[in-house]
Amino acid sequence: MTAFFDGIPAIRYEGPESENPFAYRWYDADRLVLGKRMEDHLRFAVAYWHSFCWPGGDPFGGQTFERPWFGETMEMARLKADVAFEMFDLLGVPFFCFHDRDAVPEGATLAESNRNLQEIAEVFARKMETSKTRLLWGTANLFSHRRYMAGAATNPDPDVFAYAAGQVKACMDVTHQLGGQNYVLWGGREGYETLLNTDLKHELDQMGRFLSMVVEYKHKIGFPGTILIEPKPQEPTKHQYDYDVATVYGFLKAYGLENEVKVNIEVGHAVLAGHSFEHEVALASALGIFGSIDMNRNDYQSGWDTDQFPMNVPEVALALYYILKAGGFTTGGLNFDAKLRRQSLDAADLIHGHIGGMDTCARGLLAAAELMEKGDLSDAVAKRYAGWQEPEAAAMLKGERTLEEIAARVEREGIDPRPVSGRQEYLENLVNRRL
Amino acid sequence: MTAFFDGIPAIRYEGPESENPFAYRWYDADRLVLGKRMEDHLRFAVAYWHSFCWPGGDPFGGQTFERPWFGETMEMARLKADVAFEMFDLLGVPFFCFHDRDAVPEGATLAESNRNLQEIAEVFARKMETSKTRLLWGTANLFSHRRYMAGAATNPDPDVFAYAAGQVKACMDVTHQLGGQNYVLWGGREGYETLLNTDLKHELDQMGRFLSMVVEYKHKIGFPGTILIEPKPQEPTKHQYDYDVATVYGFLKAYGLENEVKVNIEVGHAVLAGHSFEHEVALASALGIFGSIDMNRNDYQSGWDTDQFPMNVPEVALALYYILKAGGFTTGGLNFDAKLRRQSLDAADLIHGHIGGMDTCARGLLAAAELMEKGDLSDAVAKRYAGWQEPEAAAMLKGERTLEEIAARVEREGIDPRPVSGRQEYLENLVNRRL
Amino acid sequence: MTAFFDGIPAIRYEGPESENPFAYRWYDADRLVLGKRMEDHLRFAVAYWHSFCWPGGDPFGGQTFERPWFGETMEMARLKADVAFEMFDLLGVPFFCFHDRDAVPEGATLAESNRNLQEIAEVFARKMETSKTRLLWGTANLFSHRRYMAGAATNPDPDVFAYAAGQVKACMDVTHQLGGQNYVLWGGREGYETLLNTDLKHELDQMGRFLSMVVEYKHKIGFPGTILIEPKPQEPTKHQYDYDVATVYGFLKAYGLENEVKVNIEVGHAVLAGHSFEHEVALASALGIFGSIDMNRNDYQSGWDTDQFPMNVPEVALALYYILKAGGFTTGGLNFDAKLRRQSLDAADLIHGHIGGMDTCARGLLAAAELMEKGDLSDAVAKRYAGWQEPEAAAMLKGERTLEEIAARVEREGIDPRPVSGRQEYLENLVNRRL
Amino acid sequence: MTAFFDGIPAIRYEGPESENPFAYRWYDADRLVLGKRMEDHLRFAVAYWHSFCWPGGDPFGGQTFERPWFGETMEMARLKADVAFEMFDLLGVPFFCFHDRDAVPEGATLAESNRNLQEIAEVFARKMETSKTRLLWGTANLFSHRRYMAGAATNPDPDVFAYAAGQVKACMDVTHQLGGQNYVLWGGREGYETLLNTDLKHELDQMGRFLSMVVEYKHKIGFPGTILIEPKPQEPTKHQYDYDVATVYGFLKAYGLENEVKVNIEVGHAVLAGHSFEHEVALASALGIFGSIDMNRNDYQSGWDTDQFPMNVPEVALALYYILKAGGFTTGGLNFDAKLRRQSLDAADLIHGHIGGMDTCARGLLAAAELMEKGDLSDAVAKRYAGWQEPEAAAMLKGERTLEEIAARVEREGIDPRPVSGRQEYLENLVNRRL
Repeated sequence: MTAFFDGIPAIRYEGPESENPFAYRWYDADRLVLGKRMEDHLRFAVAYWHSFCWPGGDPFGGQTFERPWFGETMEMARLKADVAFEMFDLLGVPFFCFHDRDAVPEGATLAESNRNLQEIAEVFARKMETSKTRLLWGTANLFSHRRYMAGAATNPDPDVFAYAAGQVKACMDVTHQLGGQNYVLWGGREGYETLLNTDLKHELDQMGRFLSMVVEYKHKIGFPGTILIEPKPQEPTKHQYDYDVATVYGFLKAYGLENEVKVNIEVGHAVLAGHSFEHEVALASALGIFGSIDMNRNDYQSGWDTDQFPMNVPEVALALYYILKAGGFTTGGLNFDAKLRRQSLDAADLIHGHIGGMDTCARGLLAAAELMEKGDLSDAVAKRYAGWQEPEAAAMLKGERTLEEIAARVEREGIDPRPVSGRQEYLENLVNRRL
Repeated sequence: MTAFFDGIPAIRYEGPESENPFAYRWYDADRLVLGKRMEDHLRFAVAYWHSFCWPGGDPFGGQTFERPWFGETMEMARLKADVAFEMFDLLGVPFFCFHDRDAVPEGATLAESNRNLQEIAEVFARKMETSKTRLLWGTANLFSHRRYMAGAATNPDPDVFAYAAGQVKACMDVTHQLGGQNYVLWGGREGYETLLNTDLKHELDQMGRFLSMVVEYKHKIGFPGTILIEPKPQEPTKHQYDYDVATVYGFLKAYGLENEVKVNIEVGHAVLAGHSFEHEVALASALGIFGSIDMNRNDYQSGWDTDQFPMNVPEVALALYYILKAGGFTTGGLNFDAKLRRQSLDAADLIHGHIGGMDTCARGLLAAAELMEKGDLSDAVAKRYAGWQEPEAAAMLKGERTLEEIAARVEREGIDPRPVSGRQEYLENLVNRRL
Repeated sequence: MTAFFDGIPAIRYEGPESENPFAYRWYDADRLVLGKRMEDHLRFAVAYWHSFCWPGGDPFGGQTFERPWFGETMEMARLKADVAFEMFDLLGVPFFCFHDRDAVPEGATLAESNRNLQEIAEVFARKMETSKTRLLWGTANLFSHRRYMAGAATNPDPDVFAYAAGQVKACMDVTHQLGGQNYVLWGGREGYETLLNTDLKHELDQMGRFLSMVVEYKHKIGFPGTILIEPKPQEPTKHQYDYDVATVYGFLKAYGLENEVKVNIEVGHAVLAGHSFEHEVALASALGIFGSIDMNRNDYQSGWDTDQFPMNVPEVALALYYILKAGGFTTGGLNFDAKLRRQSLDAADLIHGHIGGMDTCARGLLAAAELMEKGDLSDAVAKRYAGWQEPEAAAMLKGERTLEEIAARVEREGIDPRPVSGRQEYLENLVNRRL
Repeated sequence: MTAFFDGIPAIRYEGPESENPFAYRWYDADRLVLGKRMEDHLRFAVAYWHSFCWPGGDPFGGQTFERPWFGETMEMARLKADVAFEMFDLLGVPFFCFHDRDAVPEGATLAESNRNLQEIAEVFARKMETSKTRLLWGTANLFSHRRYMAGAATNPDPDVFAYAAGQVKACMDVTHQLGGQNYVLWGGREGYETLLNTDLKHELDQMGRFLSMVVEYKHKIGFPGTILIEPKPQEPTKHQYDYDVATVYGFLKAYGLENEVKVNIEVGHAVLAGHSFEHEVALASALGIFGSIDMNRNDYQSGWDTDQFPMNVPEVALALYYILKAGGFTTGGLNFDAKLRRQSLDAADLIHGHIGGMDTCARGLLAAAELMEKGDLSDAVAKRYAGWQEPEAAAMLKGERTLEEIAARVEREGIDPRPVSGRQEYLENLVNRRL
């Protein structure tokens, strides 16, 4: 055991009345909700990057965190892994997620980087033998190194495309080997800084080809997990191609990948794209590409990715309601893509962030489940569209009526639709009643 | 002749040095630019609605404009048409655009509304015999009347869907009859106010079916124009399904309409969706769905659709450059979806708005054409991607290499890409030099 | 009794478990919270305008609501008053608020408008004899009529300034006569649409003079209430002078009014200005100008004033916590400047909106009170600044040390401050625990 | 001479037709504009930090620039100074600006840091003997080091306040010694990350006291320059106290400093605060606190500080027009607080950025000057307010009329103001005609 979390006990469920800051008030892993354990509903994952690698910097200031494992050596990488699994155990989380470059330092060549990655994968594998924590997903960091400054798959230089392919292959191998349940691609540099130097069509084709290769490779190695794309509208680039769920869907359709790839939706990215998080979840579900989520919150007054731990129960509840309606997670899960504020220097802060996030989600789940069980919200929706069950309406929707046939009927029957209340305030009250 | 524009002369080109406020300084219809008349490049259209129907209201105040033709009678509709064509002639614009409900009052039934529309269409037709102004596009207003408050094609009530079909059919008929070069659909209410009462999948299917019927009907009647969708992210609804170009593309692909329907892109809608206007143009071009534009400007500090006349030459120039690169307009054109500020009460203001808009676009066109002619901007882009012409790179892009083959080559050859400058500032200077 | 609310019972407190949609679950007027009745803490007011006058229009569509009292006659104004007081009684709210032009139609002259206002004031006065509902504040609508399109106090035309003065005087008289506890000024047109035609300094001086006259008149007539300014950054204008709390403070200081005028802060206006609502409350409190609030919520993805009923308990709780810390309301209160969605057509919707809003606030109050009682949040803050109690620190703050003395001490003592954790996540959990 | 700019010639004015990328097309230092040399109007300054210290990192990626002088030693600091003055000479700029921590590495103690600063100041002084480039302003970096993570003047820890005082004193001394024409304070950490741990009132008082000490020290040492505050709404913090010009004005009034301190306004900060840049300039001028500007541009679609070189001539022209109307700069100037895009790796890019920025401003100045000379824009404004010259109107504004006197006159005279056109489109055309 390292000394990093000294004095911090394992976090246990103690119920809403507990005043112990190191306890769950709402997250009770084994509690049955809609017939399934809370842990199996929520499938919490800790993000390796934010929790163990981020130094606390921002665009106007440098490192604030001082961690014993900071340093670009394999020894430090092993110490970091020790601390990480200690935290997984303290929290009792079922999953974690990592980028290749969080886990190990970059080597002098890709081959060396890949060997580093393989080495830490073996460390992870050994730890996973005695920990309950499994791998939700792996991903390759194709955005931090300067070689990727103009994109990875979409770089004007085909050598960068090739290099990225080599990095992704290695990361997919390791993810497969560790039993990862998904493999994620976030295209942080797949976009542009200025249209003036960009060939949009060429870059989209590059990205389509790259993703196709990833899918082909997944099948070749028999990786049973899901390939996920994580939409984000911008930042660091001015414009990113995977802008939001709808954009990713169009991209997948264009390259024939809509049955092979799903989305990993992040709260903050939804907000930056001008959407509510529940919108992105519900839309992905309607389009058949819902996969997994990156749970966090974005400050509503800040125009950049703030990656804070969630704490607003009503908002989380609504998102979880749409996830339950979509059937819940299959291979996906709820990854805390959330980082401490840069003034939260202490080991205890790392624990408080996760406790707060997990309790918020647990409370949201209970409310969402109650909404599902009562059923009055979805009944109200069904009733609103009930007219479409009528034969003539159904015929219109099935394509059995032409524009001119319908037009003639409207004139013939003197159809004059009467508006009915949308009852938004009533439904909002209904939701609030379940919280 | 009505007296509305009394004292205002026909607007002629007088050159940049003119101090006459009622003259074009840059718009010279017959001037050849890249071998084509300026008028044929820009294909300006006046928007009937903003220019002749908007009363000057906003969410916090009522009517400010006092027009002799305001009033819900056919007599007033005819007076309005008189004034409109007088303005078209004063400006010498080649096109106009209209919504059915701008042109005539709504009748007691759809049949009566359709008769009203037919009657004004005949008025328009007669006027077009002696005017140079033709119809760029027609469109049905499916958003102002309370029957559409919860959507037209996407209304939970199938009778509203049917009513909308009847209205669109009549408007397509009239557009066809008047030689309209396009037919536009803007789904201002095709979206939702709250997800709580919305069945997203059902509504998307309704919208897909509706658009399919429109396309089928176009072919049936032999309408040679283009069917256009106008993206907008929100307002009046919280979320609109035709969010932006990328979203519309995905929707068209989902319903197999990507070869039948193109987009009419509005500056202000692009901005509200978080994009630059030139992004939307370039993306539509890359996706093969560029059709037409609604030219205006949106205040960058206001979060709603401000529909101002364009006046920033560098911004307009860049958008026109991407339009020229896309081959220019075919059936599409440049519609001024722009309205006077509500304090601009006078007839002269209406003329000043259009003069300013047309001169800004003309000046932008000259700069865009110079960028095309010099060619150094597109040469710089081509050079940036030149590596993809190499055989191994081309093979990757064509799908002749697998992920693992590429990965192996990277390790084998020790590929280590060296970043090169993106030269953004240099390219920006290049653009500014042409303005 | 009118028939408008037929079938809707008086709303009573039934507790959190009630499934009756026409009951309060949390708002229990007589419940003691921190030693004061809930009603006396929250001081709820209904907004006459949104509830009884707004027709359901938006910038893209017209009226959706059909109310028996719509129409510009005094008879309709009296019917509207009947319905309004019926709703006040159904809800059991202690206050209402109104604009002069909500209550009565504008006359042909200001004198006639003033007589209309006086007439309805007498109707209100009679109703208030038998109702528990009192007047929280009155205000003059200086923004809807076209005469105010370029501002009221800040109009380039001094006759408009004069007209506005006449209107405000009459409205202050009526507010005083009805026992109003405050008088509010919202400068919806006190700003500009374009700087190009604006003399900023002149307009600020006009506004300063106008407000000074209002304050002088208040003292002259012995009005015991508070004069309140309501900040808003923009909309309908591009820029409004009363942008936010900080801006209003600077304006008051510039014209020597900071001890005479306080602010009425609206949630949605705070959000549009780029602030959290609790920021605006806390800042007004720190600056000594906190007065009253307009409670609502603004859609976080919409760039305009959405004026929805509040429903997010954690957000409301935090704002109420800062209000409690500021000592709670004195003459101020909590006005629901919130309107139904335009699809919420029914009388019942009006009730649901208010029930939901009141329950959300009641629940927020209970949480805020618990935060106050436990005191750990404010203890944590006090502890963070405890160093300033030390003599040398206190001396610096009191102005007893110069820059060079302090600089010398730092070098002499080798001061090297050590960062300590800001504990944000811990404090967020603390807050969530009280909700 | 270092080799950094090898191959890049000194930049000379060659006129608009030049195709030489290393030439000014519009900036002609000695050209007389409104009777003053262009150089003396624009008072360009290079920002030491962005040009020579920024490594090209962003929140998702590390260093991209490789500069021979990167490294935390005094030797590197001297090399950096060599390159900097070489660039100043190449460009022929009259000014530069620096933060203390750009110029030299931080020492082990404040005393050592101060000695480092003094040492480089002597280097600068020697270089300035042979260079035309003078110091526009100096400033202390009170935001990058972790000690300042919770604020400098507003830190809860009084030792940090003291440390900041020590740092500022040293930087003021050096600025004075180098003949700096202003001293700037940007409070990047003077704000909060969460209200939950913040005592707003205490922090404002700390900030007021700190600024008072700065002003007192300025007088004590006889520094003839201007003390400037640079407003910014947020980033890095969630909220910064110096939000915008109006907020700073209120702060200065609160602490009696409005005659001692002016503002340094940055384009990007204005935009992030929801204002146009010309608004902030015009407001500062109206309030009597206009000082200097940080010229750059902010991407209109990005929610963070992008600090790009300006390139939109119409926007710059309008801002310069309001600066000319304010009388132009006195001690202030136009500092390029602009950085290369992180993909712009080459020495040449640094030159292109500045050439583009300077030419854009020069072109804007010519347009602004023409607007001044023609005078029709300001005549139109004056005419709009002409009514206020009438005796009765002037009496109202001077405070010689009471609310009730004015109200009585309106009724007596039956005043009924008639709206007149605001002529926005006409005025916009007028501006465009001068560009």
